[in-house]
Amino acid sequence: MLVEGTPYRTVWIEADGESVGIIDQRRLPFAFETLTLRTAAEVGVAIRDMLVRGAGCIGAVAAHGMFLAARECHLGGLSGAAFDNRLDALAAELRATRPTAVNLAWAVRCQLDELAPVADPHEKVVVARDLARRIADEDADSCRRIGEHGLSLLRDIFHQKGGKNPVNILTHCNAGWLAFVDHGSATAPIYAAHDAGIPVHVWVDETRPRNQGARLTAWELGQHGVPHTVIVDNAGGHLMQRGLVDLVLTGTDRTTWTGDVANKIGTYLKALAARDNGIPFYVALPSSTFDWETADGVADIPIEERSGTEVARISGLAAEAEAGGGFPGEVEVNLVAKGSPVANYAFDVTPARLVTGLISERGICAASAPGIAELFPEISPSRESAN
Amino acid sequence: MLVEGTPYRTVWIEADGESVGIIDQRRLPFAFETLTLRTAAEVGVAIRDMLVRGAGCIGAVAAHGMFLAARECHLGGLSGAAFDNRLDALAAELRATRPTAVNLAWAVRCQLDELAPVADPHEKVVVARDLARRIADEDADSCRRIGEHGLSLLRDIFHQKGGKNPVNILTHCNAGWLAFVDHGSATAPIYAAHDAGIPVHVWVDETRPRNQGARLTAWELGQHGVPHTVIVDNAGGHLMQRGLVDLVLTGTDRTTWTGDVANKIGTYLKALAARDNGIPFYVALPSSTFDWETADGVADIPIEERSGTEVARISGLAAEAEAGGGFPGEVEVNLVAKGSPVANYAFDVTPARLVTGLISERGICAASAPGIAELFPEISPSRESAN
Repeated sequence: MLVEGTPYRTVWIEADGESVGIIDQRRLPFAFETLTLRTAAEVGVAIRDMLVRGAGCIGAVAAHGMFLAARECHLGGLSGAAFDNRLDALAAELRATRPTAVNLAWAVRCQLDELAPVADPHEKVVVARDLARRIADEDADSCRRIGEHGLSLLRDIFHQKGGKNPVNILTHCNAGWLAFVDHGSATAPIYAAHDAGIPVHVWVDETRPRNQGARLTAWELGQHGVPHTVIVDNAGGHLMQRGLVDLVLTGTDRTTWTGDVANKIGTYLKALAARDNGIPFYVALPSSTFDWETADGVADIPIEERSGTEVARISGLAAEAEAGGGFPGEVEVNLVAKGSPVANYAFDVTPARLVTGLISERGICAASAPGIAELFPEISPSRESAN
Repeated sequence: MLVEGTPYRTVWIEADGESVGIIDQRRLPFAFETLTLRTAAEVGVAIRDMLVRGAGCIGAVAAHGMFLAARECHLGGLSGAAFDNRLDALAAELRATRPTAVNLAWAVRCQLDELAPVADPHEKVVVARDLARRIADEDADSCRRIGEHGLSLLRDIFHQKGGKNPVNILTHCNAGWLAFVDHGSATAPIYAAHDAGIPVHVWVDETRPRNQGARLTAWELGQHGVPHTVIVDNAGGHLMQRGLVDLVLTGTDRTTWTGDVANKIGTYLKALAARDNGIPFYVALPSSTFDWETADGVADIPIEERSGTEVARISGLAAEAEAGGGFPGEVEVNLVAKGSPVANYAFDVTPARLVTGLISERGICAASAPGIAELFPEISPSRESAN
């Protein structure tokens, strides 16, 4: 998607063919900075310190890290078992940077499997670079297809509204291209509609405590030229009551094969408000996000409790720094009095009954075991066992 | 309620009988500071600059401001029409500090009506001081009675739960004693239960954008020794799904005679979650908060749109200031990139169908025209016209 008028992805092979480019997402939205990474260790730091985040993005960056790892082994003159042993060690270091990131482990495993049968060290590097590119392309293509399917939905709403006024979409957190390689999941239909000339306007929940909406979603929509307005997480229900939302569209961290949606804390509240006001609530996801094991998301998906510091403190651009035009340094401030306990639940689960539909790369389906099984017959547990 | 072990109200006549004490609420929760006000103009500044806020608190402070106004007229040697004209002018200045505050205008009017028939200038000052005290006492007493009625509700829940585990209450914004003279509205039952030895624990919504929950409610509960935990506004639905909330209890800015509740933005979302999880949702209010004119709150209560700056910026205690132990100055930081539009809706309306009951100084009633009419037969529009 566009940044300052230029198309970007979240990760790429630099023109030299020997290094990897990323965006330092920690600096957004106050500064846009790209970094060139030359070693697998540098990629590991970028993942561990969350310069990059989001499942699809982390997977693609890790695949690129494995390319750099193979390159290091080759440049070090290794071959045969020595090459493979060193590569395994670098792979383990990379995996350890975020041990719970499924896409990271998956991408590293893909690379190891692809490289194992290749004998020539130089050839291994070429294969690893090709696979890194392919993994990134596939992630981007999957999101692009989500966008195409969602576009038809937005086009229908636009025409149902009379074909004049913008389609108002409310979104929560950042399920944008910054969390993937390109397009994003929840944002993909929005970018597709905008690029197709359908007027859209996005209500962006700031998404406390980490403010991924205010920081990332608002920034990426703004850079691509998509009209949007940042609101506090409390505001969505009121907007829906007043007819100012046509569609709620979010991403998901994990969706059960029965259609229960685990996503950033607060998503459930927006789904309730959508239901109360007769507004469609859609969840966009690449099918890699499906959990084919869990049937009851509300009961069985464990919800991560994170540090209370994320709630008690917030960082932003000091007003003086902005006014002075100086280096846009961020300042961290306390929001809570000393001694006040704080709790920080990272996700909640929206039950399938509140979800109008799921938008995947294969199409749109009902958020139910039969609906999902129809699109994914080869993976979904059989309909018979659904209830 | 207690502050550092000492009972406080939000406004009082100082021991000299000639000045008025308040708490500078802007400094909370990072510093507790009281101020002595000696003139009506100083009271006006305190109201205008929001050193004090909350309907009940503003009304009582304004009543005290009128006492200082009468005192100034007397000290200036005025009497007769000259006294009254000067008092009227000071009253107008006081009213203009927050023109939409109903309680402010009401308290000023009470004082003018009370003083009009009194001829002796010194006697006017004594009468004004007595009335200021009485208005504060009545506000405190009204809240104390809300607490007594709500206490029976909390006691019932405590025993229904088996009489061992704390009653978990979720509240939104600050409907605490800081917004009144003492006790508060939503907090009154909580303080009453705590003081009666019923174990309670309060989930405190931080309440973006102004964070009155994290700043004020958490502080006052902590000072009085009530167990509590600050959470982001997004978290309540998840807590209810997991059985961690027994009761939602909020205040209200305006409640229609049919039971629709206008309150801080985000209240509606909590009411929806309470309904979805079978959790009682109660609203505490002094009856002065009833709107006896409006029947359909969702359609007809205007919702104030405030400056986007409240959303785009936040202030807190700089982490370094805290660590260094220096003067606890607050810092304002930007949360949103330059150029991202921001909207700031201050309130939303929770329809009566989602409200389990109203707790007023006269008792608990259903949030419906008949329920309210039963407690307030002399004011409520007749039941016949309710639907």
